[in-house]
Amino acid sequence: MRTITRVSEYREARNRLDGTVGFVPTMGYLHEGHLELVRWARRENNTVVVSIFVNPTQFGPGEDFERYPRDPERDLALLEKEQVDIVLYLQPGEMYPTGFNTWVEVLGITEQLEGKVRPGHFKGVTSVVAKLFNIVRPQCTYFGQKDAQQVAVIQKMVSDLNMDLKVVVVPTVREPDGLAMSSRNTYLNQGERQAALILWRSLNLARDLHSGGECGAEAIRQQMESMIGQELLAEIVYVSIADLTNLQEVDSIDKPCLVSLAVRIGRTRLIDNIVLGDQETPTIMS
Amino acid sequence: MRTITRVSEYREARNRLDGTVGFVPTMGYLHEGHLELVRWARRENNTVVVSIFVNPTQFGPGEDFERYPRDPERDLALLEKEQVDIVLYLQPGEMYPTGFNTWVEVLGITEQLEGKVRPGHFKGVTSVVAKLFNIVRPQCTYFGQKDAQQVAVIQKMVSDLNMDLKVVVVPTVREPDGLAMSSRNTYLNQGERQAALILWRSLNLARDLHSGGECGAEAIRQQMESMIGQELLAEIVYVSIADLTNLQEVDSIDKPCLVSLAVRIGRTRLIDNIVLGDQETPTIMS
Repeated sequence: MRTITRVSEYREARNRLDGTVGFVPTMGYLHEGHLELVRWARRENNTVVVSIFVNPTQFGPGEDFERYPRDPERDLALLEKEQVDIVLYLQPGEMYPTGFNTWVEVLGITEQLEGKVRPGHFKGVTSVVAKLFNIVRPQCTYFGQKDAQQVAVIQKMVSDLNMDLKVVVVPTVREPDGLAMSSRNTYLNQGERQAALILWRSLNLARDLHSGGECGAEAIRQQMESMIGQELLAEIVYVSIADLTNLQEVDSIDKPCLVSLAVRIGRTRLIDNIVLGDQETPTIMS
Repeated sequence: MRTITRVSEYREARNRLDGTVGFVPTMGYLHEGHLELVRWARRENNTVVVSIFVNPTQFGPGEDFERYPRDPERDLALLEKEQVDIVLYLQPGEMYPTGFNTWVEVLGITEQLEGKVRPGHFKGVTSVVAKLFNIVRPQCTYFGQKDAQQVAVIQKMVSDLNMDLKVVVVPTVREPDGLAMSSRNTYLNQGERQAALILWRSLNLARDLHSGGECGAEAIRQQMESMIGQELLAEIVYVSIADLTNLQEVDSIDKPCLVSLAVRIGRTRLIDNIVLGDQETPTIMS
């Protein structure tokens, strides 16, 4: 495994590669969710490239850029074990040299959900991902279903800008008790860790209600909110039932819908989702 | 020469190409300026791709999108003569399918000159050029010095977004009397065609003043404006002497400066430029 810190050095390495390149962009502090992406990339490509870059432009003021967890040594050891070929380990100065001033922005589907509560977040995401795609030049790239809106935004960017690569969406990996894997889970103390289960429990409630014949989005949303309201450490940011294709809120679940939520557990903001009205959202319990 | 109207069909053709691809994006209605770009691309690459696409998103409301001159048959004949390999002849529906909503935007240097008088223009340019680069996948792309700010904006986008290609800037091609080649010259009637010489004449005045030792930007600008003011059919949009690196107006010419101007001749808005304080701007008289 080779660790590269300069874009120019990667370019040279890339020009010598034959076959397909599978790419997993990450912000590091890797967990089983990331490693699952890497394993999919490993199975499907000749070369696997993983980037580690905590991207400052996708954090808003007052968000957790500074305290976002970092552990590069552990990350590199994990990636070596997964037989990754190249790790692009980047610092902000390499990605955003002085005078940087070009942005890639998807409008429309970035205006709901995460985009609504985190203004500018997706502009930071699409700009850095466009840069990384141009640097890495992959045939396939792998994103986790946990960040469902991010997946939709990246797919839209790839399609609108005619980027010549395939976006593969990998099912959410969960702890044995159902909590979706996230680097931010590390912020939770013991009580909060227990309280965080409320996200998965409320999504299961939505699934059960829907299987039981309930198609009214408002009714399902209310029952989810009422369940979450009983968890003292939880504070709802949003609970959404939206059309999977445009992320607009729906009245009734008569087509594939994304049920997604953001909940603050103490100081930590967690997100999760399932898809209803389609095939069940795949999920991997570790 | 092969004419391709579908992105998917080009993709297949592109995957079968070996060697370098040189790319010339155009809006058609080709003149010697375009053909000069094509000749440079022909000399330097195994395959030459020219796109013809009148891009609606770079025209503002009230600008000349609808009446922009078009003559595809003549264009194709000219390109065939220059031994172009592939012409991508695109319609708006192919580039902007329903629901298209992703934009690439360079800030900073797009806020002066053309960007100031044509709000949104460069956002349309960078978005379509990013799309075309992703479709065509060239090693080199060729732009004319006549659109000096466009060149600077494209170079900035390529650098900021880590696009892996070389932007080659080709000297402005002029009519024997000095008028810069432009598809919009076709709008001029005989009197206007004569009046349009005022752009080149005022740029030559700037060059002469500077060679004579004048370094004050304001003094040079005033004399240019005064000369243009004597041409009854001409109305100044802007006359600018700006730092070549950031397009900010300067007080004195003590580094390479872009002297540029936009002038309305009747209903037609024309632009032209030279560089001072550096090597002379190269120019090709046809």
